[in-house]
Amino acid sequence: MFWFDGALHETSIAPVDLTDRGLTLGDGLFDTTLVRSGRVFQRQAHLDRLAASAATLAMPFDAKMAAQALDTLAESIGNGGIRLTLTRGGGGRGLAIPETAKPFLFGASFPPPPVFPRLNVVTTTIRRNETSPVARLKALPYLDAILALREAKAQGADDVLFENTSGHVACFSVANFFAFFSDRLVTPRLEDGVLAGTIRALILARAKSLGLVAEERSVNRAELSRADAIFATNSLRLLAPCQMLDGRSLDSAQHKSIEALQVMLETAVADECDT
Amino acid sequence: MFWFDGALHETSIAPVDLTDRGLTLGDGLFDTTLVRSGRVFQRQAHLDRLAASAATLAMPFDAKMAAQALDTLAESIGNGGIRLTLTRGGGGRGLAIPETAKPFLFGASFPPPPVFPRLNVVTTTIRRNETSPVARLKALPYLDAILALREAKAQGADDVLFENTSGHVACFSVANFFAFFSDRLVTPRLEDGVLAGTIRALILARAKSLGLVAEERSVNRAELSRADAIFATNSLRLLAPCQMLDGRSLDSAQHKSIEALQVMLETAVADECDT
Repeated sequence: MFWFDGALHETSIAPVDLTDRGLTLGDGLFDTTLVRSGRVFQRQAHLDRLAASAATLAMPFDAKMAAQALDTLAESIGNGGIRLTLTRGGGGRGLAIPETAKPFLFGASFPPPPVFPRLNVVTTTIRRNETSPVARLKALPYLDAILALREAKAQGADDVLFENTSGHVACFSVANFFAFFSDRLVTPRLEDGVLAGTIRALILARAKSLGLVAEERSVNRAELSRADAIFATNSLRLLAPCQMLDGRSLDSAQHKSIEALQVMLETAVADECDT
Repeated sequence: MFWFDGALHETSIAPVDLTDRGLTLGDGLFDTTLVRSGRVFQRQAHLDRLAASAATLAMPFDAKMAAQALDTLAESIGNGGIRLTLTRGGGGRGLAIPETAKPFLFGASFPPPPVFPRLNVVTTTIRRNETSPVARLKALPYLDAILALREAKAQGADDVLFENTSGHVACFSVANFFAFFSDRLVTPRLEDGVLAGTIRALILARAKSLGLVAEERSVNRAELSRADAIFATNSLRLLAPCQMLDGRSLDSAQHKSIEALQVMLETAVADECDT
């Protein structure tokens, strides 16, 4: 189902302004959420992140309308996911942000995605550009990730791992990166060019209760090769262990703390949605 | 005027697939051309670049349809400019390129842009990411340039100059970079993260006939501060001298070869269009 102009629609064809800067310049944001039992998991965290990201782009954000879109789409799908897209709206020519632009919000619900496989990942020569604020936002420009993923799939891999321009690990194509180094759970700093993922935040917040020491810090290539386990997190698929990185086998799924993290996440979903 | 579905329209509101990857992921290209006397300047060069860029993105490209859009819009405006946008088209979820995607082509014509001022330019901390093929394409993702330009305008500047992640000069927000070092005319290599601008190519091709030695090579920050003159080129505005860079005055407009280059460009437009 699709949501636009304040209502649900069966069709994805909508009247769109061809001067919309989301369509012409990638000037906008999106957000993806998990839906269980007709409820959006981490609903408020997603709305808060969208609001903060819109502020970074100096875009007005109608939180009430976004919440209405989320709730309406969640009810329509029951179990699955939602993608909201928020563009700058129509505007004149050029890059300067038009003062009169009125943001365009639309959304789509979809069935549960296939279960995340154990990931076979390759690194890419395309770097995540941590010098840009865009690298820390779920902003529309995903062409780097599209090209890098295409290259990875041509090599038989499932996903791609980006390093940033300083040679530090950043993230997967659409997921945050975590690694275990002995008993330390490490994820890159946001400043490394990383989205403030909601599952990332949940793991950082709950790590201590699982007896884990979690650290946000940079990880370089040499250190990456010494990781005991690696996994990816995102809103839709929660946690996926990595079983191969650049041809090196990794027993991530067997790491003693992976199952505890997966149980914690599934319990969080159930607690928030299945009540 | 707007062009979509094979015909001219007065309205910019068109039926668009909300799953169009140009709208949802910045997965597409655009192109901007100058129109004089109802004709598109460097028409074939622009069509060729679009075709080559589409090939880089593994997108089908209908050159005949693009030519028809260009010619129809050129006739509609007489004097001014055209922007064509080519997106991947609608597709399912995820970043993987859908095999069935059918590209969406649309265009707009517009009156002549205001005369390029003598530019007051500042550099930005956002780097041009030359590790990505996207940096060499007129691809939809322009959010880095939007944010950098916004920052520059807040400082009272007209435009922004990007360095790449290696510390070499790349380009302005929507224009190629040229500098004179004594009698040498230098522009960055495409590998520095630079669009293959059609005016850039024309200047490189004609330099010798104007008695200039032109070089494509990297320029670092230290060298930038020793430039005798700096100018910007793009399809719509041809050549604009830079009169200030990071607060340093530059007499670029007075450089002995700038006027010769401007005359060459204006003559090329007249020769191609006003016949």
